[in-house]
Amino acid sequence: MIHREGQPIAATVYRGESVENSHVAHIAVVQADGKLLYSFGDPSRMTLPRSAAKPAQALAVLETGALERFGFDDGDLALMCGSHSSEPRHIERAQAMLKKAQATEADLRCGGHPPLSDAVYVDWLKRDFKPGAVCSNCSGKHAGMLAGARAIGASVERYEQPDHPLQVRVKQTVADVCDLPKDDVHWSTDGCNLPTPAFPLDRLARVFGKMAAAQDEVERSTAVSDRQAALAHLYRAMTTYPELVAGEGRFCTLLMKAFKGALVGKVGADGSYAIGVRASEQTAQLGAEGAIGIAVKVEDGNTNVLYTVVTELIAQLQLGTPEQRTAIRAFGARPIVNTMGVDVGRLAVSLKLERHLDGGTR
Amino acid sequence: MIHREGQPIAATVYRGESVENSHVAHIAVVQADGKLLYSFGDPSRMTLPRSAAKPAQALAVLETGALERFGFDDGDLALMCGSHSSEPRHIERAQAMLKKAQATEADLRCGGHPPLSDAVYVDWLKRDFKPGAVCSNCSGKHAGMLAGARAIGASVERYEQPDHPLQVRVKQTVADVCDLPKDDVHWSTDGCNLPTPAFPLDRLARVFGKMAAAQDEVERSTAVSDRQAALAHLYRAMTTYPELVAGEGRFCTLLMKAFKGALVGKVGADGSYAIGVRASEQTAQLGAEGAIGIAVKVEDGNTNVLYTVVTELIAQLQLGTPEQRTAIRAFGARPIVNTMGVDVGRLAVSLKLERHLDGGTR
Repeated sequence: MIHREGQPIAATVYRGESVENSHVAHIAVVQADGKLLYSFGDPSRMTLPRSAAKPAQALAVLETGALERFGFDDGDLALMCGSHSSEPRHIERAQAMLKKAQATEADLRCGGHPPLSDAVYVDWLKRDFKPGAVCSNCSGKHAGMLAGARAIGASVERYEQPDHPLQVRVKQTVADVCDLPKDDVHWSTDGCNLPTPAFPLDRLARVFGKMAAAQDEVERSTAVSDRQAALAHLYRAMTTYPELVAGEGRFCTLLMKAFKGALVGKVGADGSYAIGVRASEQTAQLGAEGAIGIAVKVEDGNTNVLYTVVTELIAQLQLGTPEQRTAIRAFGARPIVNTMGVDVGRLAVSLKLERHLDGGTR
Repeated sequence: MIHREGQPIAATVYRGESVENSHVAHIAVVQADGKLLYSFGDPSRMTLPRSAAKPAQALAVLETGALERFGFDDGDLALMCGSHSSEPRHIERAQAMLKKAQATEADLRCGGHPPLSDAVYVDWLKRDFKPGAVCSNCSGKHAGMLAGARAIGASVERYEQPDHPLQVRVKQTVADVCDLPKDDVHWSTDGCNLPTPAFPLDRLARVFGKMAAAQDEVERSTAVSDRQAALAHLYRAMTTYPELVAGEGRFCTLLMKAFKGALVGKVGADGSYAIGVRASEQTAQLGAEGAIGIAVKVEDGNTNVLYTVVTELIAQLQLGTPEQRTAIRAFGARPIVNTMGVDVGRLAVSLKLERHLDGGTR
């Protein structure tokens, strides 16, 4: 029923038996060392991971020593890596982080926007609430950047500019953790006004694989590098506080809660997703030595389809238990129901992963 | 900069110089007799035009004599062809149509849903308004169907079922106006619960071309067929009452208002659009004999991208004057601005229409 021959169609919407829409996606499954294990579509697609790159950006801030200096806890670090729903708990924490960093909302260089949570949106509309910068889903990242700027003795003004000393460090750190020369990462400007990277999709998988592998290593050995300790710290913060990485009912939060530390997952705007999975019998059965990383990009940027593809991918790779996967079942392939509750079609996933037996470190 | 070789990528979102998303589309430009003039992608893609098929469905109702019998005026006919914004003027008209048809909201077999207008949505939320069937964007179509059922002496109950005598007539009429054998039109169930057809994209263009051609003919001759008179009636109703076909600020309304009767345009859910253009110097310059029809389907169903592609297509075909095209300029290819008002990228259109000199009637 796939009607565009040769294209990596990952999802198709059927109405009755007719094809309504089809969606192309790209997937890379790698070891933490970058070895490609499985792919679909183009695993090297130059991709803007958007907020899925937040942990890599937070790594640069973490390595300035800003967390210790300003008393940021692991919840704060999770919010730095999160795309939060602008719930009261998120906004209050962002405000507290600003205070710890001796900054105010006026120092933030992001803008308010309608929240990612429908419930919050309705609440705001009902009371004519106009969101400010601290309500941005990225306010944790920005508060962290302000603290990072202070920690390296730079001005907090213009902290969002590509030539600011903190952003210069972020660029170097992101390239490093991707194992790429600095010039191979291309930078644009994000919706929240910070520089945002583009790099091959499998590198996004690699970064998340490294986070999971670092936590494996930390639990195995006391002699880990500072970088590994920092990557493991990010992993623990996000998996310990999944409700600060997204919010009530959101995919990332439900996924990480259900998997209880076995994986870290983060969405990016316009259809990207990244997962790091700690080493287990399941990763070994997939042919991996140690932890794995997974990255997905839906070519047309559809977030609804993204979550569905990721849900089916997790099932196909048999990650976690059936019970754990139940937590995200509502996002999976499913019937489409109309305004009268009638079943009129379905969102179907057609993923055939290609196995790379000789993947090689790319 | 198109990175998926060989695919009909009609629109690309760039963030800086990096490709964020790309969108495939299919386009057919035909004469009213079906001769293919220009195409992009697959002009024969089996497509669910969804609400862009409403005029073809309304044709069947019109031909029952229901309009005269129940005193429906041209505004009512426009609402039957429309996907309205659930503004008060739309809901009030739908209620009045029900009354004329001796029916009530309880007879409707569609369900309420969040409105297509953001302003109406905010209004409803603020006053905790729960939309009923008459608020459906399709309530005009449904009220027309009720009247049609009465006009042919059928029960109004189950009027939405595929085997109801009215829907049997609708199926025949839609196939007829597409110049297709009945079995070549595939029927599914729409979001509003009525049967909804799928047929090749160029047939959708043909139907709209026929509507424009019929109006040309009606103005030229007094001896037109009943079918042509009905098609011209649909054309006049939609172009005379564009605010009833969509609503405040919506694309269809702005387009038809600006073109003052020179074209009819209608959107369908999940990325389809159809236009009928009356014969003019411009259509002649495009190589057409008489009126033309245009149909577009965005493969991934993105409506925002659809409007952008249609806007650029109208410019490329040089339909109307530059002033007329200004009315829809905001929907065209444009910069992408972030939450701080910074220009961070662009939505670009890359349409290279293929000219079919020997198009032939297919």
